[in-house]
Amino acid sequence: MKIGERHLTLLCDFYEMTMGRGYYHSGIRDQIAYFDVFYRSNPDKGGFAIAAGLEQIIEYVKDLSFDDEDIAYLRQKGAFDEEFLRYMKSFRFTGDIWAVPEGTVIFPGEPIITVRAPAIEAQFIETFLLLMINHQALIATKANRIARAAQGRPVSEFGSRRAQGADAAIYGARAAYIGGCSGTACAIADKEFGVPAGGTMAHAWVQMFDSELEAFKMYCVLYPNNPTLLIDTYNVLESGVPNAIRAFKEVLEPMGKTKCAVRLDSGDITYLSKKIRVMLDEAGLYDCKITVSNSLDEYIIRDLLMQGAQVDAFGVGERLITAKSDPVFGGVYKLTAVEKNGEIIPKIKISENAAKITNPHFKKVYRLYSRETGKAEADLITLHDEVVDDTKPYELFDPQHTWKRKTLTNFVAKPLLVPIFKDGKCVYDCPPVEEIRRHCQEDIATMWDEVLRFENPHNYYVDLSEKLWNLKDSMLKSKGRKQ
Amino acid sequence: MKIGERHLTLLCDFYEMTMGRGYYHSGIRDQIAYFDVFYRSNPDKGGFAIAAGLEQIIEYVKDLSFDDEDIAYLRQKGAFDEEFLRYMKSFRFTGDIWAVPEGTVIFPGEPIITVRAPAIEAQFIETFLLLMINHQALIATKANRIARAAQGRPVSEFGSRRAQGADAAIYGARAAYIGGCSGTACAIADKEFGVPAGGTMAHAWVQMFDSELEAFKMYCVLYPNNPTLLIDTYNVLESGVPNAIRAFKEVLEPMGKTKCAVRLDSGDITYLSKKIRVMLDEAGLYDCKITVSNSLDEYIIRDLLMQGAQVDAFGVGERLITAKSDPVFGGVYKLTAVEKNGEIIPKIKISENAAKITNPHFKKVYRLYSRETGKAEADLITLHDEVVDDTKPYELFDPQHTWKRKTLTNFVAKPLLVPIFKDGKCVYDCPPVEEIRRHCQEDIATMWDEVLRFENPHNYYVDLSEKLWNLKDSMLKSKGRKQ
Repeated sequence: MKIGERHLTLLCDFYEMTMGRGYYHSGIRDQIAYFDVFYRSNPDKGGFAIAAGLEQIIEYVKDLSFDDEDIAYLRQKGAFDEEFLRYMKSFRFTGDIWAVPEGTVIFPGEPIITVRAPAIEAQFIETFLLLMINHQALIATKANRIARAAQGRPVSEFGSRRAQGADAAIYGARAAYIGGCSGTACAIADKEFGVPAGGTMAHAWVQMFDSELEAFKMYCVLYPNNPTLLIDTYNVLESGVPNAIRAFKEVLEPMGKTKCAVRLDSGDITYLSKKIRVMLDEAGLYDCKITVSNSLDEYIIRDLLMQGAQVDAFGVGERLITAKSDPVFGGVYKLTAVEKNGEIIPKIKISENAAKITNPHFKKVYRLYSRETGKAEADLITLHDEVVDDTKPYELFDPQHTWKRKTLTNFVAKPLLVPIFKDGKCVYDCPPVEEIRRHCQEDIATMWDEVLRFENPHNYYVDLSEKLWNLKDSMLKSKGRKQ
Repeated sequence: MKIGERHLTLLCDFYEMTMGRGYYHSGIRDQIAYFDVFYRSNPDKGGFAIAAGLEQIIEYVKDLSFDDEDIAYLRQKGAFDEEFLRYMKSFRFTGDIWAVPEGTVIFPGEPIITVRAPAIEAQFIETFLLLMINHQALIATKANRIARAAQGRPVSEFGSRRAQGADAAIYGARAAYIGGCSGTACAIADKEFGVPAGGTMAHAWVQMFDSELEAFKMYCVLYPNNPTLLIDTYNVLESGVPNAIRAFKEVLEPMGKTKCAVRLDSGDITYLSKKIRVMLDEAGLYDCKITVSNSLDEYIIRDLLMQGAQVDAFGVGERLITAKSDPVFGGVYKLTAVEKNGEIIPKIKISENAAKITNPHFKKVYRLYSRETGKAEADLITLHDEVVDDTKPYELFDPQHTWKRKTLTNFVAKPLLVPIFKDGKCVYDCPPVEEIRRHCQEDIATMWDEVLRFENPHNYYVDLSEKLWNLKDSMLKSKGRKQ
């Protein structure tokens, strides 16, 4: 069941509704407001993140409405008058949304979604938008790191049982595939989204039979095309591998089959995989692959491969599906402007913490690519009506240290945000996950290796246009003072 | 929509089905199998965990079946024959389940769920059972730590936007309430489960008006009963607090209302809250409460209170809803026995890692309480047919260091596992969350403070009966050898 088929209207922070009633009764109700979704820092101190979760946001916004049960719930809370409740019964999203397509490389501070809508509507969708982006961008980013660590070897997402709830398993598998995993163990993610699902046996299969050999042989009889045998139920080198070799030889060889694999789920993977490779090769099982799992992540995979572990494929569970090393993607939703009498009035939020100060106004984001290398050189945030003319040199400057300047020539400027909703109507076709995954790989290929590094990556430039910088500076100077 | 109303049959690891077909065709299909759910170590190096997630497991098992779409999906995977698919179409859970009630204090290594069912059925429910327990026990345990750190001050769960998907927000709010939170910001968790939801305003509310004072006054007009004003949109001490005081005085005082609060969401909470308390008291606003949020967890809350922060209530977001400091609850599902001709044959899984060796056989768990203090002294895992006679002294021994022995006298033995399903029929009434939450608090009260400590807690005894210990020891000795 897709997220849009579930009635999740009240999956919102309660304050979206207390504010909604407030806007309704204070004349702000139909005032157009602009909000940006952006995030502040990259997970795992990496150099970037991967956008994901938009398809579920679209499903949600399309069907957003309050049913009788929702209204009855709100009524018994005692905080909402009947006039407002009548309004909520007819509530629909009627505004505009722009977003960065799923699978796109994104950076801190830049709008990845912009919402323009009557204040109540724009405010109301906050919780759900953030929830979807914060979850799926987190997992897609983690998966991308893990898949790159595996250096071309397939990585299967194995974490359903350790996910934080059913959606974390299902949409986590989707996001992991977008980020670069080759498949999942989660069957429903295959059925719903076409993320290829696979899997063979648990330790219970081996235990269920009187002997390990019997369990292995039976599995090969039932699945003679490329069976994977789990070899660590009792003792890997003394029992698991010799029994697997016997099963392959006694069952597969007479059928003329050579494709098979063993899976190792415990112990020292480098040491054991080397021993296993030797044993398999000595038995002539050159086509037998070695798959490993057991609390892996990008750091362990990198180390295993550096140490010469003989691994053909990885299964990654809990550390991917929960993004264990950094399990929060801190996307936020901030008011950037309101419209009054057709004029856009920029808004800013100030904070003791400079990193929490927002970029005001309705904006656009351009990615600037070198025509020579095809690589992305910088992102540029501009006011909504600025046009970047890429036939002329463009001077970028660091928004913190404005004396750091760089003139770009011979570049292409591509807008990152595309229209998703126009006047409440969806104007975007969601691509299948397979295509999103390909887009992600292509986007990664436009990034310099320095940006892709796991540790201490190059700080990719996200600059403000001069007009935007000047506006922000003047607002800070006036709003920073006592209100 | 409750989890049982969604069709989540295929939310399973694909291997549950490859094994299912294997059991079907290898004569194991109807062989009764026993599986235990248990976990190996406490989150955050704490002394215990809180059981949660059972209600959702019950909903799932009750309605478990494959619909035509599921069968069509399986068919096109090419790995399943028509005979097996016909069997799957009529698949239902017909077995028995015992479980520890939600809200109960649990410890590593002891069965928290035991399943007895025909092999295919018992195997199939693995993924979903683990998923539910691993998520909700994780969050309930974290919430319990955070609520205890707050020393009686209410803690509200605020994390929906940072949760790992929609279910993580909804069921996370449920689990957080079970663990000890006083409420949530998540409206749907209130509607579905009765977890009290509340909330007032975001920074956007303040920004939406021409001035902070206007925003505050309007909110007090609209919500004169105990309004909470967010005071850090521009400058807490220079602007937020003075404007809040003016709004309370100008709007609430003339109405004779004194209940109100301010919320601080950034900056140094200890420093600012002390300053705020002084300013409020000087203005005569003694009834005005101070609520704080901003990346809190049990450690920060404990430190804030130690430093004398003037805080009346806490809002806790991302670090609770993702259990950020330790976001994986490692519950596992292991085969412990099979039945052959009416006889129970115990099974064991051995591992290079001694902590991963399982406890064989169909078992029971007793909690032993001192009659004198009412405190829990130890848990005891026994074979299913053992009876602990608490009218006589009982000698416990450490299963690792068997020379460590202790004789309990004057104690009560209470079984922890209760029947949930019998022959596929649910025989358990799920209590409302309010009652589960109370049970949790009562259960915590039976634990020694030493067990409740955040760091280096006392290692609560989970012992094996002599019969079970002897069985395990003899199986290890025979199975540890080459198979």
